[in-house]
This record gives sequence, structure tokens and C-alpha cells, in this order.
Amino acid sequence: MHHESQSTPFPVSVYRKEHFNAAHRLHSPLLSDAENKVIFGKCNNPLYHGHNYELLVKVTGFVDPVTGYLMDTKLLSRIIEENVIEKLDHKNLNLEVEELKDTNPTCENIAIVIYDILRAKIKSDLKLKITLYETERNFVEYPGE
Amino acid sequence: MHHESQSTPFPVSVYRKEHFNAAHRLHSPLLSDAENKVIFGKCNNPLYHGHNYELLVKVTGFVDPVTGYLMDTKLLSRIIEENVIEKLDHKNLNLEVEELKDTNPTCENIAIVIYDILRAKIKSDLKLKITLYETERNFVEYPGE
Amino acid sequence: MHHESQSTPFPVSVYRKEHFNAAHRLHSPLLSDAENKVIFGKCNNPLYHGHNYELLVKVTGFVDPVTGYLMDTKLLSRIIEENVIEKLDHKNLNLEVEELKDTNPTCENIAIVIYDILRAKIKSDLKLKITLYETERNFVEYPGE
Amino acid sequence: MHHESQSTPFPVSVYRKEHFNAAHRLHSPLLSDAENKVIFGKCNNPLYHGHNYELLVKVTGFVDPVTGYLMDTKLLSRIIEENVIEKLDHKNLNLEVEELKDTNPTCENIAIVIYDILRAKIKSDLKLKITLYETERNFVEYPGE
Amino acid sequence: MHHESQSTPFPVSVYRKEHFNAAHRLHSPLLSDAENKVIFGKCNNPLYHGHNYELLVKVTGFVDPVTGYLMDTKLLSRIIEENVIEKLDHKNLNLEVEELKDTNPTCENIAIVIYDILRAKIKSDLKLKITLYETERNFVEYPGE
Amino acid sequence: MHHESQSTPFPVSVYRKEHFNAAHRLHSPLLSDAENKVIFGKCNNPLYHGHNYELLVKVTGFVDPVTGYLMDTKLLSRIIEENVIEKLDHKNLNLEVEELKDTNPTCENIAIVIYDILRAKIKSDLKLKITLYETERNFVEYPGE
Repeated sequence: MHHESQSTPFPVSVYRKEHFNAAHRLHSPLLSDAENKVIFGKCNNPLYHGHNYELLVKVTGFVDPVTGYLMDTKLLSRIIEENVIEKLDHKNLNLEVEELKDTNPTCENIAIVIYDILRAKIKSDLKLKITLYETERNFVEYPGE
Repeated sequence: MHHESQSTPFPVSVYRKEHFNAAHRLHSPLLSDAENKVIFGKCNNPLYHGHNYELLVKVTGFVDPVTGYLMDTKLLSRIIEENVIEKLDHKNLNLEVEELKDTNPTCENIAIVIYDILRAKIKSDLKLKITLYETERNFVEYPGE
Repeated sequence: MHHESQSTPFPVSVYRKEHFNAAHRLHSPLLSDAENKVIFGKCNNPLYHGHNYELLVKVTGFVDPVTGYLMDTKLLSRIIEENVIEKLDHKNLNLEVEELKDTNPTCENIAIVIYDILRAKIKSDLKLKITLYETERNFVEYPGE
Repeated sequence: MHHESQSTPFPVSVYRKEHFNAAHRLHSPLLSDAENKVIFGKCNNPLYHGHNYELLVKVTGFVDPVTGYLMDTKLLSRIIEENVIEKLDHKNLNLEVEELKDTNPTCENIAIVIYDILRAKIKSDLKLKITLYETERNFVEYPGE
Repeated sequence: MHHESQSTPFPVSVYRKEHFNAAHRLHSPLLSDAENKVIFGKCNNPLYHGHNYELLVKVTGFVDPVTGYLMDTKLLSRIIEENVIEKLDHKNLNLEVEELKDTNPTCENIAIVIYDILRAKIKSDLKLKITLYETERNFVEYPGE
Repeated sequence: MHHESQSTPFPVSVYRKEHFNAAHRLHSPLLSDAENKVIFGKCNNPLYHGHNYELLVKVTGFVDPVTGYLMDTKLLSRIIEENVIEKLDHKNLNLEVEELKDTNPTCENIAIVIYDILRAKIKSDLKLKITLYETERNFVEYPGE
């Protein structure tokens, strides 16, 4: 394998979009039932509601001059699938996801959990950012540190 | 009010799109637990999952020559909101929706329930068709009779 | 030019989507000012509002066995551009479009006007249907005769 | 397995969307090189160009009263995947697809080939319709017989 | 109300998308009529044209460890609705919007006006960014200071 | 021409989206055929595949207080059309694009080539960023220096 060409001097970002469907209710263990009902309204329904979540993962770094890839999106897709989608897809986020059990599964908190999971799986010299769409009109972005 | 112009001789259709978020599990009361698990797989999760449903309502008839409307989409939107969205939005479709309690809340059956509800609220000389998107890639159409 | 192959025995439809931006107000010349205000509400604003209209044109017929085309979409696009878009784009639909001057520029009436214009330009053995999107959530379909 | 409920008396349609990426050039074996160049312009480039095709498959029939499904979309997806996507995805449609070798791979002809492949795999009491998007603005619909 | 958990140490952003429809013409009071006509072309039409504007509001800050919210998107939606949408929706941007009366209602200037309105209504420890889509293919982003 | 108003003190960004269709194969001249086949899989097909590329160009700078424009999107569109789209649309990216001939036409490398072309055509006091969508779910961002 010959490595004679050079990388561009500036970073590039690669994005990969995946999706999952899940049930949840917004309910904070740090609030009373009455407070939860006032703050979260119909999203606090104890019998749950759900969403088609769209997950956008951004990875930033330098292009490998040999392959022309920053990161193979097929590999990125597999990492997301095995570590995030299998854990969240067709699940009840309040009851079945260890990382969310003691917290409120708001879009913010789900995004942070996904970031923490993927941060451990993506090479540390690559920056990571998570965007999580709860609906087309409500979404959250978490760039970590 | 003067009615001197004439309607076009051909029917027109008006579409209105609304959305709701709900939890469900696919589970037929006519099948055993084992059969349900085989047929519906992860969609049979007893702790539910959920979707952002997009609902497209099509109404067909003749344009009123005075207003230029087949039907005011603000009115159509309000009929859908009051009769369908309030009943389904942020609900558990298996447990909280009377019309779905003895059936399996597949996209097909939800679309038929929505059709039956709206058929009773839309003037009988107007044809009605329901399209219900469970995801961007899975959807169902029910044109009734 | 050799014509030795055969057409499929069943019709095919080709769709082409174009867009235009225009101002309008909903105001029927057959209604009093007070009636117009009640029926059309904020859409009756005498100073106009506007939309990004998306226009979808469907043409149905048999595929030419020599070219493999029902109709060249570049040609269809040009016909729409020259006859519809040039007439409606960046215009005031109440004041500047001859075919709409004595009517109310509802989505229904604009679709019918577009159909009539294109019907005269598309070969008569091809069926034609117009879908006009006033917004992503409000649209109209006119299949003519 | 108990079959005590009844199907709705009216047909329902289920849609499933899949996608594939492919290279092609528009070039009819029934036309001379000069004719091909005039008719197909830059689409006739002998070095090919390509598209992200979106394929929408519509299946129409009666809902099974036991499962609540017309047809399991996971099954429909697998049938499309195994019979259509594996054949067309990341392929050169002019050179690598047996069913298209003696024809011009227009969107119309690709849709007809897909219909014929799937017609043999979908139960004969279900109606089938193919919509194939070459771009967001150019697409074709083939409902077969 | 117990506040025992801790906020994540890194900021999160929440996005909310709203829309409005309006008429405008591009015409700068600082240019002559002839200059306006040359620079803005058909967008300078004195009888106006219009758009379906999509407005994306981004708010950045720290998640409240008790609620799991950075900011309730229902509240954010209401602030946008009451302060921006009611002012701009179904309006003539040149004639009816005080903040735009002495300026040219380009997408840039409308975005800046929206930013200034919302900046006064969003808590000062939250960063704000406005993205305004005039069409799907033309849009503007304004992050303020 | 009178220049009496003042620019906002903060930068604004204008976005313009264009598209092109092209064929390519992923194949690095710095790797052996066997290595290329392992790394790029079906994307290495020697007979090519293709995509509908969506290209988003972001330009950042200060609004001209006289016109209210950062940059006329009609002009930006023309610059992209004449310098990028004409070069790439309906082309084979491996064989027909000078700037890509000695490299692997990954989404990363195409984005960098587009950046370099446009950087020479956009005024140097304006910042430039390229986003290139290979599919709806795979895309790349290149902000240059």
C-alpha cells in the first residue's frame, strides 16, 4: 500500500442519518406527579406515546489521502446500528434503556446518551456531534465537549 | 349573495395533512402470544413503541362557483383536529382508543378507524380517502367504498 | 429510424414537478366585502400574502417502443415553463393573470386554469392531471375530464 | 388460531419505499447514434451518469381480519430487496441487468421491468403498482394491467 | 422539588421550526426605481409576489437537570407564534410590518428583524440563531452577536 | 446611489442549493485492485453506479446596507451553475473531470474540489462552506480554511 499523496490541511465532516421508533413519556424522577403533569402536559401520559426518531451523526477530522475517506459511512452506519439502534429501536425508553432509567427521556437527554455511547466507539481524534429529531419541527443538537 | 357563475363540470380533490404521535404494539387478540411474537416480531414488544403518524385526508367533489372552494381547508383541518387528532395524539392506541380496543392497531386498521370517524363528519356528497404514514417508507391508503 | 419493437399494452404515467412564487388574496367577486372577510379571514387581506407553489403535472399514455419514453420530461418541463411558469411566477394572481381576473384565485381555481392551459399544449391522446401544492399541508388535484 | 372477526368490505393499499443507486445512459438500440444524441442530449453520454432511484411499491387487496395486515411490510420489503434491489443497486443498468440489455433504460422501462419482476412474486389476488423516482422532480408510475 | 442531579457540563441546542406565508417585493428605499429594477429583476414587481417562509429557531444553553429540558419547545413555539408569526403571517412585508417599513425585505433583513424580536424574549443566558428559508433552495442564517 | 444606512455589525450567511447527477466508482489509484475491492465493496463496481448529488453552498459575510443582500442568490446560483454544475452534471466523475482524475471521487474529495473551484470565484472577504449530499443519509461538509 503506497501513501504518496497528502491530506488536505483542513478538516472535513461526514454525516450519517439513521432512524428508530420508540415509546416514551416525559416524567422526571426529580419532580412530583403533579409537577410532572403541569410541566409536560400530554407528553406525561402514563400510558406513553411515541416517535419516529431521526438520528444524524456528524464526525469531523482529516481525510485519509489513500482512501479519500474521512470515515467509511458503511462502517459509521454499522457502529450506530450495533450500539444505538439495537438498544433504542422499538423500545420503551423509560423502561428498557439502562442509560435512561434514572432520568427523563427528553430529546436533550436521549441525544446526550447517544453521544456518550458513540464517543466511546469513534476514534478519539475525530470530533463527534449528535442531532436528534423527535419530529420534523422539534430537534436537538449535542456537540459534546 | 349572487350565484351567477357555474361550477366546473369535473370533480376536484382537496388534500389536508395533519400529524399525531402515539404509542402502540402490534398484537392481535385473535392470535396466541406465541403467534403474535412470530408474526409481529419487535413490533409486538409488550412495553410498546411509537410513531410520528402523518395523516393525509383527501376530499373529492365539485368546486362551489361562488367561493371557489371545494371545501375550506381550515374547516377540514378543524374537523380532523377535533375528531381524530384529539382522540389519537399522545395516546396509547392499544389501551386508550375505544375504536381500536378489540383490534390490532396496524396502520391498516388505524386508517380504517379514521375513515369511519371522518366519513360521519364530511358531507355525504363528497368522496373521502385516507392515507396514513407510519414512517416515511411505510404507509397505507384507504378509499372506503 | 427502425420501429421493430412493441409498446407495452398498459399505460404509464410520467410526472414532472415545477414551482413558482406568487402573491394573491382570496376574494370572490360574487361575494360582498363582509362575506369575503368572514369566509376567507386572514387570506382576504387586501394587501395580499403569498406562497411557494409546487406544481406536479401527470401525463398518462403509452410508451414509445423506439425511444422508451412516454414523453421526454425535458420537453414537458419546457411546455410547463413557457406556458404556466412564465405566466404565474413572481406575479400577483389577482391582478396580473388574465385567466384569474374574474374569479377567486383559490388553489382549486388556479389548478383548473393550469389544467386548461396545459390541456391545449399536450397531445390529445395523453391524459393529464394537475396537482398544485399551496403549502406542504394544503393541496389540490384536478384530473379534468 | 381463531378467525372470528371479519374483513372490511373495501380494499386497502399498503406502500413500501426502497431505494437504489445506479448508473445508466439513455441510448435506444432502435435508433442511430446521431438520433440518440439529438433525442437524449446529455443523458446519452457514453460514459454514463447516475441516479439515486426511489422505488415505491403499492399493493392493494383486503385486510386479513386475524392479523390486521393486508401484507406485512417487512415481508414486502424483503421481496423487493431480494428481487429488485440486489439486481439494480450499484449496477450499470445498460450493461449489467439482463432484463434491460436490449432496451433503453428510461425511467418508464425500468419501472416496467420492476413491475414484471414483482408481479411474479406478489400473490395474484393483490393488485400491484410501481412508482419510480429518477429525481425528486421526474418520476414514473406503472400500474400494469 | 428536589434538585439532586447535575447538568451536563456541555451546551445543548434545541431547534423549533415554524412557518408563515407572506407577500413582498424587493425594493430598496436607498436606490432609484431604475436601480431597483436592474438589481432585483422580477422580484421587484410592484404588485408583489410571495413565499411560504420556514423559520428555524435555534436556542443554545445548558440542560436543566431537574426537567431534562434546555427549553420547553411548546414554550418556544408559543413565543415564536405570539411575537413573530402573528406579526408576519399573511401580511405584506413591505407595507404592514413596522420593523421592515424603511428597509428592503430581503431574506437577510427579515431574518435580522426576527432575531431582534426574539432576542428580547429569550432569556439572555441562552444563545439564539435564526435560519429563514425563503424557498427550499434559498435560505439565510443569522447568529447575531 | 445613496449609502446612508448602516450594515448590521454581525455576519449573515446565505445558502443556495443546486443539484447534479453523475456516475462514479470508488477506486483509489494508491491502492491495489484487491485492496480497492475490500475497502469499497459494491461501490468499486468497474462499470460504475451513480447518484443525484445535492450541493449546498454557504457564503458568509456582511449585508450590504443599500441592497439588503449579502449576495444575490441568483448570482450565486449562476456562479455555481457555470463553474460546478456544467463540469459535473451528467458526467462520469472518474473519467471526465480533470480535477478528479488522479484521485478517488469520494464525497469528501468531490466536496473539496467544488470548494476549490468556488473559492476562486467568490469574493475573498466572504467565507465559503460546501455541503455535498450523496444520498439523503450520507453527506459531507467542507468549510475550507
